[in-house]
Amino acid sequence: MEKVDLLIHSAGQVCVMPGVSGPQRGAALGTLGLVENGAVAVRDGRILAVGSTIELQSKYEAEEVMDADGRCLIPGFVDPHTHIPWMGDRAGEFEQRLAGATYMEIMATGGGIMSTVRAVRQASVADLVADNRPRLERMLALGTTSVETKTGYGLNLAAELKQLEAMRLLNEALPIELTYTFLPAHAVPEEYNGRTDAYVDLVIEEMLPAGAEWMRQHNVSLFCDVFCEEGVFDVAQTRRILTAAAELGYRLKLHADEFVGLGGTMLAVELGAVSADHLVRTPEADIQALGQGDTVAVGLPGTPFGLAEPDYTPAKAIIKAGGALAVATDCNPGTSWCESQQMMMALACRYMGLTQAQALAAVTINAAYAIGRGREIGSLEPGKQADMLLLDTADYRQLGYRYGINLVRMVVKNGRVI
Amino acid sequence: MEKVDLLIHSAGQVCVMPGVSGPQRGAALGTLGLVENGAVAVRDGRILAVGSTIELQSKYEAEEVMDADGRCLIPGFVDPHTHIPWMGDRAGEFEQRLAGATYMEIMATGGGIMSTVRAVRQASVADLVADNRPRLERMLALGTTSVETKTGYGLNLAAELKQLEAMRLLNEALPIELTYTFLPAHAVPEEYNGRTDAYVDLVIEEMLPAGAEWMRQHNVSLFCDVFCEEGVFDVAQTRRILTAAAELGYRLKLHADEFVGLGGTMLAVELGAVSADHLVRTPEADIQALGQGDTVAVGLPGTPFGLAEPDYTPAKAIIKAGGALAVATDCNPGTSWCESQQMMMALACRYMGLTQAQALAAVTINAAYAIGRGREIGSLEPGKQADMLLLDTADYRQLGYRYGINLVRMVVKNGRVI
Repeated sequence: MEKVDLLIHSAGQVCVMPGVSGPQRGAALGTLGLVENGAVAVRDGRILAVGSTIELQSKYEAEEVMDADGRCLIPGFVDPHTHIPWMGDRAGEFEQRLAGATYMEIMATGGGIMSTVRAVRQASVADLVADNRPRLERMLALGTTSVETKTGYGLNLAAELKQLEAMRLLNEALPIELTYTFLPAHAVPEEYNGRTDAYVDLVIEEMLPAGAEWMRQHNVSLFCDVFCEEGVFDVAQTRRILTAAAELGYRLKLHADEFVGLGGTMLAVELGAVSADHLVRTPEADIQALGQGDTVAVGLPGTPFGLAEPDYTPAKAIIKAGGALAVATDCNPGTSWCESQQMMMALACRYMGLTQAQALAAVTINAAYAIGRGREIGSLEPGKQADMLLLDTADYRQLGYRYGINLVRMVVKNGRVI
Repeated sequence: MEKVDLLIHSAGQVCVMPGVSGPQRGAALGTLGLVENGAVAVRDGRILAVGSTIELQSKYEAEEVMDADGRCLIPGFVDPHTHIPWMGDRAGEFEQRLAGATYMEIMATGGGIMSTVRAVRQASVADLVADNRPRLERMLALGTTSVETKTGYGLNLAAELKQLEAMRLLNEALPIELTYTFLPAHAVPEEYNGRTDAYVDLVIEEMLPAGAEWMRQHNVSLFCDVFCEEGVFDVAQTRRILTAAAELGYRLKLHADEFVGLGGTMLAVELGAVSADHLVRTPEADIQALGQGDTVAVGLPGTPFGLAEPDYTPAKAIIKAGGALAVATDCNPGTSWCESQQMMMALACRYMGLTQAQALAAVTINAAYAIGRGREIGSLEPGKQADMLLLDTADYRQLGYRYGINLVRMVVKNGRVI
């Protein structure tokens, strides 16, 4: 009998969500790798084996043995797009919006994102850590074991670095695992009103090099992201920033086609960005490009839901084109404050037309690829980090079908029960 | 110093949600009765006083004192329309529906509701209790302190009475408080296919008297409800059933205008029904009638959301007409399995155009009136049952704004911390 640290057995279903050689694309999206009456063996924080309960019980002697009692075992959720950390809330703005103001109108009058920017600029690193800790803990309880976090509410060098520092401290303090994105080009700050190109110069000449220095200093990897949108950064400005970032060693991400399809998705594919996110108004040619390239399309169904807008990411067209589709919360105080990838599955099933299996792949294996970590997390394949969820239910199809609640009974992160 | 059992003080906001003389109607919907830095005193399971922290601390000496630490205190949610208890699930049917089948199509082919009916008919009372207990516990954890439950998955006398019995046992076993509705006219059972009038006769001649006998035997109150809808029970059949029920001592409810506006709402008002529920396709004249009558309009936003249909209860028109509007989950395995009134607030804000304050009134004081208990529960007014929620947040406006999660930190039922 081989010794292992943890053996979870008698799971009604183990959803492996295979994707060791790449994300699930096109018609393959929703491949479960289902093992019935399954078991998972864990050693040194990693998946050692997945198989039938009988097989694994005969092979492994575990320090800790857990009976799943027929429940379903799935990979930990990966949330590949959030705007954590932030300060304050915009519940008052939400109330205003119910009276008819649009997001772009609120933004144009200096409300919206700028109110969050002011709050973040005034906060200390300790404030940022204290305020964002509960939302990351909530995410973990809802099953998210890895989460992308980003700057973009600082919009000056000191405040952007403060956000990076808060992210690093939160990652050290909590079991949930953070990846870091640098997004000084999230919006044009008030002090650069009407001078977008001058702000782009500042980003390229001062902020990106400072972020790269922070990356080296802490020996971590950073994504660079840009909000490519009408009235924010156009495609030429976005190209300048991302090209400079790539030269400095950043991996690339992009906010594209949320309100207007400008060509950002095409640019993301051309530059080899790891992901292109939002993709609501994505032109047909850009959808076809996703099918050819390696960029993961990240749908953010919480945003149209949050804004009560009718149009969502054209997931079926992206799948048909052979693209790789992930889903994220976009968790942020302005358009969609929701920590739950289970809720996003419910939205993706109803408004993006995904089956529960496709939605599950979108928030696990494909979400892992959307943050460049598909070979480490996102599935229950041997060698990967043992990030797993035991559900309250025997059937994975209850995810997406049921909503507004938490079906996660137990969270395992790096082999450790949280 | 007067002695009390419980004093909760230093609540950032106490939302009283006043309505002791009737539901909040028309422009009054959303009246908070807000007390800042408030406190609530409880004796013998009832609200004794609500006021400022300073005032109540100087007046009352409490057995148990609780510091709300700036958080928000609101009445327990009342869920005035669910289909608990049921057996089984329809996650597979949900998967089919994602492939394009409609609810009415599934129902017409004997799937849909009939699969749940078969499961309930096969179950014992003990099965029903065991399967429905976790969902009621989940509701309570999400802040629902009183819930309407109903029959309607039996569709024969024995199975309908079995559901009533399960409801009674669940009410005895759990702190959450159940009200009971008898709904043998939820659908026409397979064995009466094409003979709707014969089934209506059976309901009136056999089932309603048996339900009335059960009501007397257990000294409880029962609502009678009918699913008035094209292809199910028409207005004439509905009128026959409800008129017979009223004569037997039932209070009345009605499923109306979910898919087609047949005139069910007008009938509900005419018969003095306590509530008319769904109200998606409600004709203008019926909306005006709601403004004149005492029937509470119950919007069920989970149903269009669950089915990904675009049309919701025309809440603004109902409010404008001076109607009383409540909101419920419609929790059921077919169209919307969600236990959370918080989620319904989020839907009501986005898709029915309610402000957070209006949505809060709709799930507390007005929901209490929708089950005929507005004088006992649904607000924090002296004399009412001490059913209260302490939120995770200082501002009630985070309800509705945030979604897919649970913002309830502590539940108090009849003065007892759960």
